[in-house]
Amino acid sequence: MAGSIFGDIFRISTFGESHGAAIGVVIDGCPAGLKIDFSLIKRDLERRKPGQSSISTQRNETEEFEILSGVFDGISLGTPIAILVRNKDQRSSDYNDLKNVFRPSHADFTYQEKYGFRDHRGGGRQSARETVARVLAGSIAKMILSEFGIKIDAAVSGIGGVEKSNFNELNFEFAEINILRCGYLDLYESMLAKVELAKSEGDSVGGIISCICSSVPVGLGEPVFDKLHADLAKAMLSINAVKGFEIGSGFEGTKHFGSTQNDEFMSNSGQISTKTNHSGGIQGGISNGQNIEFRVAFKPVASISKSQKTVNSDLEEVDLQVNGRHDSCVVPRAVPIVEAMASICLVNHILNRPSNRMEHLKRFFDIY
Amino acid sequence: MAGSIFGDIFRISTFGESHGAAIGVVIDGCPAGLKIDFSLIKRDLERRKPGQSSISTQRNETEEFEILSGVFDGISLGTPIAILVRNKDQRSSDYNDLKNVFRPSHADFTYQEKYGFRDHRGGGRQSARETVARVLAGSIAKMILSEFGIKIDAAVSGIGGVEKSNFNELNFEFAEINILRCGYLDLYESMLAKVELAKSEGDSVGGIISCICSSVPVGLGEPVFDKLHADLAKAMLSINAVKGFEIGSGFEGTKHFGSTQNDEFMSNSGQISTKTNHSGGIQGGISNGQNIEFRVAFKPVASISKSQKTVNSDLEEVDLQVNGRHDSCVVPRAVPIVEAMASICLVNHILNRPSNRMEHLKRFFDIY
Amino acid sequence: MAGSIFGDIFRISTFGESHGAAIGVVIDGCPAGLKIDFSLIKRDLERRKPGQSSISTQRNETEEFEILSGVFDGISLGTPIAILVRNKDQRSSDYNDLKNVFRPSHADFTYQEKYGFRDHRGGGRQSARETVARVLAGSIAKMILSEFGIKIDAAVSGIGGVEKSNFNELNFEFAEINILRCGYLDLYESMLAKVELAKSEGDSVGGIISCICSSVPVGLGEPVFDKLHADLAKAMLSINAVKGFEIGSGFEGTKHFGSTQNDEFMSNSGQISTKTNHSGGIQGGISNGQNIEFRVAFKPVASISKSQKTVNSDLEEVDLQVNGRHDSCVVPRAVPIVEAMASICLVNHILNRPSNRMEHLKRFFDIY
Amino acid sequence: MAGSIFGDIFRISTFGESHGAAIGVVIDGCPAGLKIDFSLIKRDLERRKPGQSSISTQRNETEEFEILSGVFDGISLGTPIAILVRNKDQRSSDYNDLKNVFRPSHADFTYQEKYGFRDHRGGGRQSARETVARVLAGSIAKMILSEFGIKIDAAVSGIGGVEKSNFNELNFEFAEINILRCGYLDLYESMLAKVELAKSEGDSVGGIISCICSSVPVGLGEPVFDKLHADLAKAMLSINAVKGFEIGSGFEGTKHFGSTQNDEFMSNSGQISTKTNHSGGIQGGISNGQNIEFRVAFKPVASISKSQKTVNSDLEEVDLQVNGRHDSCVVPRAVPIVEAMASICLVNHILNRPSNRMEHLKRFFDIY
Repeated sequence: MAGSIFGDIFRISTFGESHGAAIGVVIDGCPAGLKIDFSLIKRDLERRKPGQSSISTQRNETEEFEILSGVFDGISLGTPIAILVRNKDQRSSDYNDLKNVFRPSHADFTYQEKYGFRDHRGGGRQSARETVARVLAGSIAKMILSEFGIKIDAAVSGIGGVEKSNFNELNFEFAEINILRCGYLDLYESMLAKVELAKSEGDSVGGIISCICSSVPVGLGEPVFDKLHADLAKAMLSINAVKGFEIGSGFEGTKHFGSTQNDEFMSNSGQISTKTNHSGGIQGGISNGQNIEFRVAFKPVASISKSQKTVNSDLEEVDLQVNGRHDSCVVPRAVPIVEAMASICLVNHILNRPSNRMEHLKRFFDIY
Repeated sequence: MAGSIFGDIFRISTFGESHGAAIGVVIDGCPAGLKIDFSLIKRDLERRKPGQSSISTQRNETEEFEILSGVFDGISLGTPIAILVRNKDQRSSDYNDLKNVFRPSHADFTYQEKYGFRDHRGGGRQSARETVARVLAGSIAKMILSEFGIKIDAAVSGIGGVEKSNFNELNFEFAEINILRCGYLDLYESMLAKVELAKSEGDSVGGIISCICSSVPVGLGEPVFDKLHADLAKAMLSINAVKGFEIGSGFEGTKHFGSTQNDEFMSNSGQISTKTNHSGGIQGGISNGQNIEFRVAFKPVASISKSQKTVNSDLEEVDLQVNGRHDSCVVPRAVPIVEAMASICLVNHILNRPSNRMEHLKRFFDIY
Repeated sequence: MAGSIFGDIFRISTFGESHGAAIGVVIDGCPAGLKIDFSLIKRDLERRKPGQSSISTQRNETEEFEILSGVFDGISLGTPIAILVRNKDQRSSDYNDLKNVFRPSHADFTYQEKYGFRDHRGGGRQSARETVARVLAGSIAKMILSEFGIKIDAAVSGIGGVEKSNFNELNFEFAEINILRCGYLDLYESMLAKVELAKSEGDSVGGIISCICSSVPVGLGEPVFDKLHADLAKAMLSINAVKGFEIGSGFEGTKHFGSTQNDEFMSNSGQISTKTNHSGGIQGGISNGQNIEFRVAFKPVASISKSQKTVNSDLEEVDLQVNGRHDSCVVPRAVPIVEAMASICLVNHILNRPSNRMEHLKRFFDIY
Repeated sequence: MAGSIFGDIFRISTFGESHGAAIGVVIDGCPAGLKIDFSLIKRDLERRKPGQSSISTQRNETEEFEILSGVFDGISLGTPIAILVRNKDQRSSDYNDLKNVFRPSHADFTYQEKYGFRDHRGGGRQSARETVARVLAGSIAKMILSEFGIKIDAAVSGIGGVEKSNFNELNFEFAEINILRCGYLDLYESMLAKVELAKSEGDSVGGIISCICSSVPVGLGEPVFDKLHADLAKAMLSINAVKGFEIGSGFEGTKHFGSTQNDEFMSNSGQISTKTNHSGGIQGGISNGQNIEFRVAFKPVASISKSQKTVNSDLEEVDLQVNGRHDSCVVPRAVPIVEAMASICLVNHILNRPSNRMEHLKRFFDIY
């Protein structure tokens, strides 16, 4: 209940403060026999890493990971997989000014009230550095999904109001070759202008990430409380700075009528599919075989160098300029985090799937 | 993992198909010593009930509930509280036509694929009738919250594109005296026109519900995965027909800069509060003492009497007109459901709170 | 955490006080497609029922159950199965004397301290009447196990010190035709003498139940904390009056050397088995294909009509004779409860099994 | 469900294979503000360490631990505490002979069947080396308990049939100064003779550990499934080589009558206590303020150098002598493990306690 464990079957337990010794994750429930693709872990860490381009923080984290358990001869054992990334390049002294002041829209105040005590260095556990652990676990989850042919792709679809909601136009190849991870070729320049404006003013700007899960089998997700999109929503809202989630037509769909929003079924050589995908690939909480499509809203990063008014721990009102190294727009770096959390969600539902029906279970035990 | 249990401490286990014998809930984890307000349960059931007005389905459910356990002399015992509502007025034969056809954007197809078998009568477990159990549990949760002075209010803030996002203008008194549960006096007429248009065409229309939790103590919510708003998001997306969730400024906030979105702290006679509330009352996943404010997107109801194309279980394409009694707009009846799920979330975090700090715990055991 | 939910996948949520309206269970996680054998539910309720013979309490509970959900046309839907048994023949007035007195070795005192309030009528939730719900859930679990050919048999193996620990000699057919459910033909008379002695003196006597799970597939149980026998131990110790659990050679095995306790492997036409079964069918927490064999210790029932000294709620020392209808020896009636809890444990591990290995999972999704 | 996570509020997630890089634990749910006593962690690791005396394995593990997170300035932050112990002195080549053979009463066979693949080096995850993580977590749990004045003491009470079950005679000071951790002064010599006999014959011998939890507040433990002793039973049976658990009079109590087994209440200057403690400090699953007393049965270690018959992975019968460094009797080293698991159980119930009653909760929120 302390909130650092996620998942029911593929359960991840994360730890680490921004300026502590290390960040890491223990994954309990990875099936045995998975070939571990070390390069994929490395690749996703690189995609999340600060200092990738001119627009992100210059904290230079060389993310070297170590697998401490659960893998033998490059194959998962079925036992817990622990992965560690040591923290480096910590300039804790950058944060001395912040020891007794509550940064606006940061969690300094709420942590102080909740725990009576906090690690002020780099935000401690509230820092987005915590997401390193999510990416580590997510890369293992992606390896599992890839064995089933499932693909998880995310890209930036909005920055500072420059946005589109059309999933079909997303270009994931383009997203990986531009510094914004922008998925819409035609929006790239305007988005970049937004980020550069924010940067030049010592400010930050928000954005949206769109994600598509493709080749998902029918039948994932549980009715009532553990609907597949309910789990995705929780996963996304648990990411730092996320303030909204919508699946399929989402908020836009509330403006329309059932006759235009309903996805009519059709049949193609024995396969049932839908003509449209306003549902975003999930009906009644259960995947229907269409692409799962959702959007995630990120507020602008709270740390800005522009001067702000706030209060210190003596309850005095003070002016604050947050120094240190911060992203003007964190959304590009959040793309692999969105993918990671989506992957972890899907793996949990994949692992749960065989227990749904007696005939499946019986056949399973007949074979093995 | 089969998805009909929700909550970690105040755990609710719901059951029941639309046209089965009964709908109900077992609440495990309600603290002992709570005075049960039977009229509140009745009131919330009435607010959820179909047939309340000309715009909702005419299925006449006289919702009579029976408390089977956990309450003695009107006081909670600390043991599981089971509450039952018998199903009545079931016209199962209304649904015979639907036995072998997959209604567009319903869960007929996904249930069939997941389980190989389904109760087609009234949608079985996929029916929104399941939410009776949520309202039952939610009313108990509200009684607990009310002991702490916490209030949960929801109202309709958008229908068919007629909407506002301003939380401060919401008028909950007005909402309870109009058939739309519309929270904005000036939008009522236009919203009603949307619903009546949908109704007249045998169609349905979507909408948005806004919710405010007030007088919430600071410190609720757990960092990382069990952030308070992540739990709220899951709770909301688990409600039938919900496709989106946003807290505070939500999607709109992504368009702006940190300098305008950050909520500056101020100090008032020893109390720290914020000047604005773009965060929606939660920072770093933990309540900060401001109002918790969020919005929930409902797609138009899938059941419409307008003709649609679809597929039957023999994979033949067919025309379908869904008969039976359906709401043109379900959002007014969903207001108590949103409140219920929010209340259950908050109670869980309330019950978890005393375990956060050694000094609190020690003082607790010193006293008792 | 309030303790009335058991299991991770096949999760049961029980409710009900002894003299409340009803006892019941909600099972979330029963796979779809199970044929429900109503006669098996009835049979196990009968086996648990009081008033079966001259040696058990004469409270006449006609246990009529009602399935409220989750079953359609006699087949499980995959949705929660709720089953209800109404309480009848409650002579609550029998218990008026006990309202303010703490019966020795009962939970009156601990409930009062824990909750500040209790339902004194028939012991409320602490009553063994609660086990009706376990038997209901257990009978569904048995139906699942029986689809895999797994059998769960328990019998009384000791009463008042008249006992044997040999599992091979247990005669389950005999057990079902004698009023003690004694599994050893040669011990029956001496056991009966013990019970009759206790009865004649207004006293009670303890006993032991032995259980064998046969035809269990290899590979059930999780290493480290969720070892199969650790889950069985918890399940058994959760039954009223149970004070001990041992698997295989148990406490006796501590007296011996590894060379005599180790179970040597042998190979028979491609099947690996063990020559002895001191391990009780589980090694390293995982089933090895041999019979799972364990013993459960029940203390004598606390309710006796013999006079005892105790304390009332005014802290005065008083003499107490517990009236009402009580068993002199509860072990015979506990046999179906032991079987029920063992079955629920095994079903959980059966349902978890397909997620252990990538090759199994992949093959599963290749087929479906 | 993969079994390496334990606890509901103070949740520990352990990892590590015997000859992998490291063993460790992540504790999620340690309250903030706990002063970490590094010397206590070190002391319990030393007590578990092999090579402490002539009777235990000579594998020389210098157990150096590193706290990676969750502690700042020596105080717990409320965030996950990760602790790591690197594996050293691994002579993996000692185990090459065992790669393709199933050691009797080891988990080689069951792991192979479950996962299709295993780390044969030193038993991998099945090795008792895994218990290092339990001791790490247990020492943090002990620090919490000690803030409430609760003490957890265990000692060896039986080896090879030399045993006593009387809890009052246990001498924990003596236990800590003899190499057997024997709690009965008068049994020490006979126990030592048993161990030396086993050692001289290349054999092993079983034993029993008794544990007393003192100064436990009334009211810990949840009725029905999460009874305090049910959780203790699971915790104990989850320890390698444990085959039995009994609380209070346990199996012996089954031989007696209610009139002698019941613990009569008495009142002493406003405090209610019991004259005897056959219940072992728990009634109806809830602590009653008396000492919690239980016994744990350990089978003889499976690894012996004496020749045994077994089967290899080609299904051939072979003779096996297990080389390597093994304990003749593991019970002395298991004492801190029993204490660790008991402590973790109690801490979970301590943390859950404040949520039991409305009046407690309300007072809590009134104060904070």
